[in-house]
Amino acid sequence: MSLLVVGSIAYDSIKTPHGEVYEVLGGSAVYFSLAARQFGPVRLVGVVGEDFRPRDVDFLKQRDVDTAGLETVAGGKTFRWSGEYSPDMNSRETLSVELNVFEDFQPKIPDSFRDSPFVFLANGAPGTQIAVLDQIERPKFVMADTMDLWIQTQRADLIELLRRIDGLLLNDSEAHLLTDRPNVIAAGKAILEMGPKRVVIKKGEHGAILFTAEEIIPLPAYPVESVRDPTGAGDSFAGALMGHLTKRGAVDRGVFKEALAHGTIMASTTVEDFGVDRIGNLTAVEIEDRFSRFRGFLAL
Amino acid sequence: MSLLVVGSIAYDSIKTPHGEVYEVLGGSAVYFSLAARQFGPVRLVGVVGEDFRPRDVDFLKQRDVDTAGLETVAGGKTFRWSGEYSPDMNSRETLSVELNVFEDFQPKIPDSFRDSPFVFLANGAPGTQIAVLDQIERPKFVMADTMDLWIQTQRADLIELLRRIDGLLLNDSEAHLLTDRPNVIAAGKAILEMGPKRVVIKKGEHGAILFTAEEIIPLPAYPVESVRDPTGAGDSFAGALMGHLTKRGAVDRGVFKEALAHGTIMASTTVEDFGVDRIGNLTAVEIEDRFSRFRGFLAL
Repeated sequence: MSLLVVGSIAYDSIKTPHGEVYEVLGGSAVYFSLAARQFGPVRLVGVVGEDFRPRDVDFLKQRDVDTAGLETVAGGKTFRWSGEYSPDMNSRETLSVELNVFEDFQPKIPDSFRDSPFVFLANGAPGTQIAVLDQIERPKFVMADTMDLWIQTQRADLIELLRRIDGLLLNDSEAHLLTDRPNVIAAGKAILEMGPKRVVIKKGEHGAILFTAEEIIPLPAYPVESVRDPTGAGDSFAGALMGHLTKRGAVDRGVFKEALAHGTIMASTTVEDFGVDRIGNLTAVEIEDRFSRFRGFLAL
Repeated sequence: MSLLVVGSIAYDSIKTPHGEVYEVLGGSAVYFSLAARQFGPVRLVGVVGEDFRPRDVDFLKQRDVDTAGLETVAGGKTFRWSGEYSPDMNSRETLSVELNVFEDFQPKIPDSFRDSPFVFLANGAPGTQIAVLDQIERPKFVMADTMDLWIQTQRADLIELLRRIDGLLLNDSEAHLLTDRPNVIAAGKAILEMGPKRVVIKKGEHGAILFTAEEIIPLPAYPVESVRDPTGAGDSFAGALMGHLTKRGAVDRGVFKEALAHGTIMASTTVEDFGVDRIGNLTAVEIEDRFSRFRGFLAL
């Protein structure tokens, strides 16, 4: 089965208590792809400027990422983001955002990608996410991410999107904002009512909660002591989750729980180094080792 | 095996977004006992004033709580606490504290309780907790709770206590305060270095993390939608944990994980109603039902 992701590709400048990096490869679709490729090839759709470094394209290609959907805007500049994390790493301040070519991004799905059964709509304007869906033939499982900006400014589009997707991934503060419910369990149940059959609320270092019509399943995060840079943790969580589902080719209760576990394990490695340094060089043995430990932790 | 708890007995006045109650039975040793008694009898040591209602003593006695260590101070008044919870229930403001007879509490362990193999030192001055330990013959497993006040004002006593106990239970903000480490995993490991072989960091609705020399095991909280009053959740967590250990009579990896699961399940019921209303009337069937669901959630 094939997996498609549509999202941002960026150059990030990041400062944390453990150091700083300047204009390193990042963006939601990049972190997603580097996580998902551990489970099989990934089809990437995104936009960059003329300044995008050829070695970054090579980096992705060498890692099973199909860049046929990578659009380069002539004369354009790649999306840039810079941010600084608080001492406890639980919050961050955006220092600057230059959307550049991402601002007018109208994703064009290559013909060869239109049959993708598994689709992830990374964080973006819900209207754009819908426009992507319109280009996919008959997806089997579509999951989307969103953020506070769209909940506040493009709510109608988001509500329409929710009726067309199978799963929504969002963090706890976004879930509260979307539903106006302070209790996270109540918030997740309210989002189920809006359309998606599966809702995953991410809680960062506190894990994630899966909501379905039948049950509410909490999972802790895989414990990590050495958090150097939290950037991309949520996107690599999504990448491992969707990658595992695509590899298994089916979405049932057991497979989805395994997929969530792979999500938290992937996030736990991503944060151990700056940018994509860790996730870009992660081995299957490391993943298998953490997965078996995690299963052991949770066996009662 | 027998389980002893030493801690506070109080009359609480509580306001939450869901209602309010005035001078209801509470205190750490009360919540602990009502949780632990689901696993076997509990020996309670605490102090009350002359105003303590006989029906509250009966309430405890009828629930397998041995009140031989309940001291009544002639002319004294029972400890009172009042607090109000924030709309999201994740923080609370103490409106008033009257320590009354609890202020000069010098716990006297009845002769018949001195052979208790399992001992829980509920939150109290660490010097007092040590004085309790001095009265126990040869405990098999001693666990203690603490709080920010003691970490800040009686650190030397607390450090001494940590060298004499087998397990410490504290919440995440207390762990950061005790160790000056913002990462919870690093904080837990640092506390292990201070003495106790098992450290449990409670994270409220986000679950708990167990630290031992061999491994770090995260567990999520049992999900609850209807949170009416969070008071006593931590103490009932401790009660179920120690109750399960006492019932099993041994403390190994598997038993301790089961004990933690019972802790989060007990906490999840406590918060569903005001004061001890829910935990005081909980049935074994309800506990077994939640335990088997929880095990099912976590099976990978």
